[in-house]
Amino acid sequence: MPAILNSSLFILHHHHPLFSTAVLSLRRHYHHLNISLFSPSRTTTLRAYSTSSSSLSIQSSANPNVRTGRSGSVTSPPIEHDTSQKIDVNPPKGTRDFPPEDMRLRNWLFHHFREVSRQFGFEEVDFPVLESEALYIRKAGEEIRDQLYCFEDRGNRRVALRPELTPSLARLVIQKGKSVSLPLKWFAIGQCWRYERMTRGRRREHYQWNMDIIGVSDVTAEAELISSIITFFKRIGLTTSDVGFKVSSRKVLQEVLRCYSVPENMFGRVCIIIDKIGKIPMDDIRKDLQSADMSEVAIEELLQVLSLKSLEKLEEKLGASGEALSDLKQLFSLAERYGYSEWLQFDASIVRGLAYYTGIVFEGFDREGKLRAICGGGRYDRLLSTFGGDDLPACGFGFGDAVIVELLKERGLLPELGLQVENIVCSLDQELQGAASAVATILREKGQSVDLVLENKPLKWVFKRAARINTRRLILVGKAEWQKGMVSVKTLSTGEQLEIKLDELE
Amino acid sequence: MPAILNSSLFILHHHHPLFSTAVLSLRRHYHHLNISLFSPSRTTTLRAYSTSSSSLSIQSSANPNVRTGRSGSVTSPPIEHDTSQKIDVNPPKGTRDFPPEDMRLRNWLFHHFREVSRQFGFEEVDFPVLESEALYIRKAGEEIRDQLYCFEDRGNRRVALRPELTPSLARLVIQKGKSVSLPLKWFAIGQCWRYERMTRGRRREHYQWNMDIIGVSDVTAEAELISSIITFFKRIGLTTSDVGFKVSSRKVLQEVLRCYSVPENMFGRVCIIIDKIGKIPMDDIRKDLQSADMSEVAIEELLQVLSLKSLEKLEEKLGASGEALSDLKQLFSLAERYGYSEWLQFDASIVRGLAYYTGIVFEGFDREGKLRAICGGGRYDRLLSTFGGDDLPACGFGFGDAVIVELLKERGLLPELGLQVENIVCSLDQELQGAASAVATILREKGQSVDLVLENKPLKWVFKRAARINTRRLILVGKAEWQKGMVSVKTLSTGEQLEIKLDELE
Repeated sequence: MPAILNSSLFILHHHHPLFSTAVLSLRRHYHHLNISLFSPSRTTTLRAYSTSSSSLSIQSSANPNVRTGRSGSVTSPPIEHDTSQKIDVNPPKGTRDFPPEDMRLRNWLFHHFREVSRQFGFEEVDFPVLESEALYIRKAGEEIRDQLYCFEDRGNRRVALRPELTPSLARLVIQKGKSVSLPLKWFAIGQCWRYERMTRGRRREHYQWNMDIIGVSDVTAEAELISSIITFFKRIGLTTSDVGFKVSSRKVLQEVLRCYSVPENMFGRVCIIIDKIGKIPMDDIRKDLQSADMSEVAIEELLQVLSLKSLEKLEEKLGASGEALSDLKQLFSLAERYGYSEWLQFDASIVRGLAYYTGIVFEGFDREGKLRAICGGGRYDRLLSTFGGDDLPACGFGFGDAVIVELLKERGLLPELGLQVENIVCSLDQELQGAASAVATILREKGQSVDLVLENKPLKWVFKRAARINTRRLILVGKAEWQKGMVSVKTLSTGEQLEIKLDELE
Repeated sequence: MPAILNSSLFILHHHHPLFSTAVLSLRRHYHHLNISLFSPSRTTTLRAYSTSSSSLSIQSSANPNVRTGRSGSVTSPPIEHDTSQKIDVNPPKGTRDFPPEDMRLRNWLFHHFREVSRQFGFEEVDFPVLESEALYIRKAGEEIRDQLYCFEDRGNRRVALRPELTPSLARLVIQKGKSVSLPLKWFAIGQCWRYERMTRGRRREHYQWNMDIIGVSDVTAEAELISSIITFFKRIGLTTSDVGFKVSSRKVLQEVLRCYSVPENMFGRVCIIIDKIGKIPMDDIRKDLQSADMSEVAIEELLQVLSLKSLEKLEEKLGASGEALSDLKQLFSLAERYGYSEWLQFDASIVRGLAYYTGIVFEGFDREGKLRAICGGGRYDRLLSTFGGDDLPACGFGFGDAVIVELLKERGLLPELGLQVENIVCSLDQELQGAASAVATILREKGQSVDLVLENKPLKWVFKRAARINTRRLILVGKAEWQKGMVSVKTLSTGEQLEIKLDELE
């Protein structure tokens, strides 16, 4: 089904609270269509599409920007193909192309991810986007597991497009064994996939920035990770009035469950159920908790603890001696020394949706409360042994490329990122095309960027292109100057034009 | 099957000419094992592996570097998992992890790809790694088609991991339609996949740098593309004595086929057959050509033309009037003006393995003739119409990350790329951990990179780590200095140590 069909799904569900986000995201996607997908007159047309065949192309009368038909070239040899078949020109459902303007934004974001990681002394790593499915089979009813983008390959192996990076990281850490010195500080920026129904305007792929510290059991590691995310927020112009962190520890839950003798092997499952609070009805939450061996009274106590928003209240409830409290107190004390305590708040309801967290958990949120979590992470000291390795203390976070872009858009903080080529070089005469190549080469060898005009074009066209690519200088190769070993150099901002000798060209 | 099993395949086939490359590549992959995979005593062990189950882990007595067993953490909550199951710690067969040292090399390579593209005024784009299978269904018996890494997804759609980037680019160009100004100069660096038997030491994924020019019919476009690859070669230290380009035009074949009235729709198929010369026996080539409606005499004439290595001989054969000759002459003339003619040679046997090329084709080769093609490209003026779009003149190339790394390794040109963190900050007292965080933050806010020691460690350990991460300065936070608002700053190259006030720390 071509991606454009999604829009009809969105239209059917426009009462959904995520509708405005979906529209924004679609607008960005289809801005090149230069039509409003959501005007009433279009709605009917788009709906009609969804009943068409799956080979339907965007190339229809509804899109004035796509040319139809073909212009046969007389001289080119033919290539064998069934030309009656039109392909869908959209990327597969839930995926994105990155045309230059979107790629510039992605590169800008990744640049800041990398720069922050570098400042914190982290080394970049990566893993295959296609992993063995076994890496993601966990038994706790996680959303991420239900949405696994999995296949059988041609050798009948069960494989999956990675839904997250942490299991691959754990695999590599076990493989490296004692050959690496701890602590490891690793970061990665990778595409992750999930297969979910497309009614919520969420894509099936996103890029995720991960930072992980392996080998530090102290809360200093979590404090360092949160500091790096805040450094990132500041770099891109966000302040504590835009975003903040909610922090808790899974040890809070663990202490409650112990009090009520809930079996330890139910822990992961209980966490996943709790993470669904606010997403599914409370009655279902209670039922799920009961099926996880929790008594009525334990459930009530648990829900009460989850509502706590201050460490003082938590201390009243759990006493001062537990690890949950001492970890959290240490984190808040470190936050003060780092200088970011105003970004942080305790919220016992935060558990995060992955089964493997064991200690501190945190998530970044927008203060207006409009968007999903911006990022999230925590401690996962027991993940390696689930893969058959020796456990090592570990913590990390994932930071996607979707919500942050929505937030920057809302705050008007998206950067202006135009193409910028330093020079445009153009011959004034077909015969001088080779000469223009030589001039381009001279400038490139000096490190400069050059757009070389490759066909004979009128000067008006050249000026238009120069403006589009933000060129600083126009270099014209004309007969008279060339015979003197010179070219005309026009500085476009001032209009100043000089004849310069080739060997003086900088 | 875990990747390590491949080694037993390689051992069984060590008479294969690619064996040395395979060993090199495996050595690089498994250098962290710190054992020789190919010493006689190991061979038996590794062979034995191949009879084991697919869940076999590298974690066995054969690998002394991977720890076995688990160290239970007393305080961490358990996560629910069947711990008896060991995962395979290798990436899926034919794929790679990128631990820090490999990632640094990948980033170095990509940096040069990007810098060259920028100097030539190209804009970066990207496409989904998962595309609709329909995008790659061509009918010319290409190797790339036979090795499509394809699946059926959970919605019963036929999808494929992209084997190349050009079809996605063509799809996006059609989608953008008239909203873009021509010529487009686009580049991309993306992972591509092929599913092939693993006996030849080739991987199933590689990264490919593509540069494409859409909208220029003149050979100036091909000349510009070749110039950019040569600029890349020079940047990374390769000269014309290491590498060169073989150039031809598919119009040469077209002219021969026309002479012998071979149907035009056989063109793509004939090109693909010819591309297999040297890879399969000549008898099979002849048979395949016969089945493509070619007479005995046409086949002999074709094979004779393919053996030509100079434009003069080609002109004798085809006459001076054809497009094949005029295109090639123009390319060699431009090469002279660009200053790279010594890198270029005409070789009529070059046709390239993709069905869609229509004009000039070229490939980069190593002069010692040991390796496969380093890169390849050409003109594909008819690709868009095969997807139902309007044709636009187009040319481009693909440049993989595998052969170039082998070549640099052979020439001793691989760069030394160590981790380098500017500062290491360490508290001398557990109580001063927060103070050390504050010091790290000050330096990071000034743009510096800092490895913060997160646990109380002996100074000997700190010096060892400082050496490992190539630190310039060690900053110690001790009680006496801290009370004066100062820290100790030790320049590690000189051993010089100074007490510096916090607000004077640069």
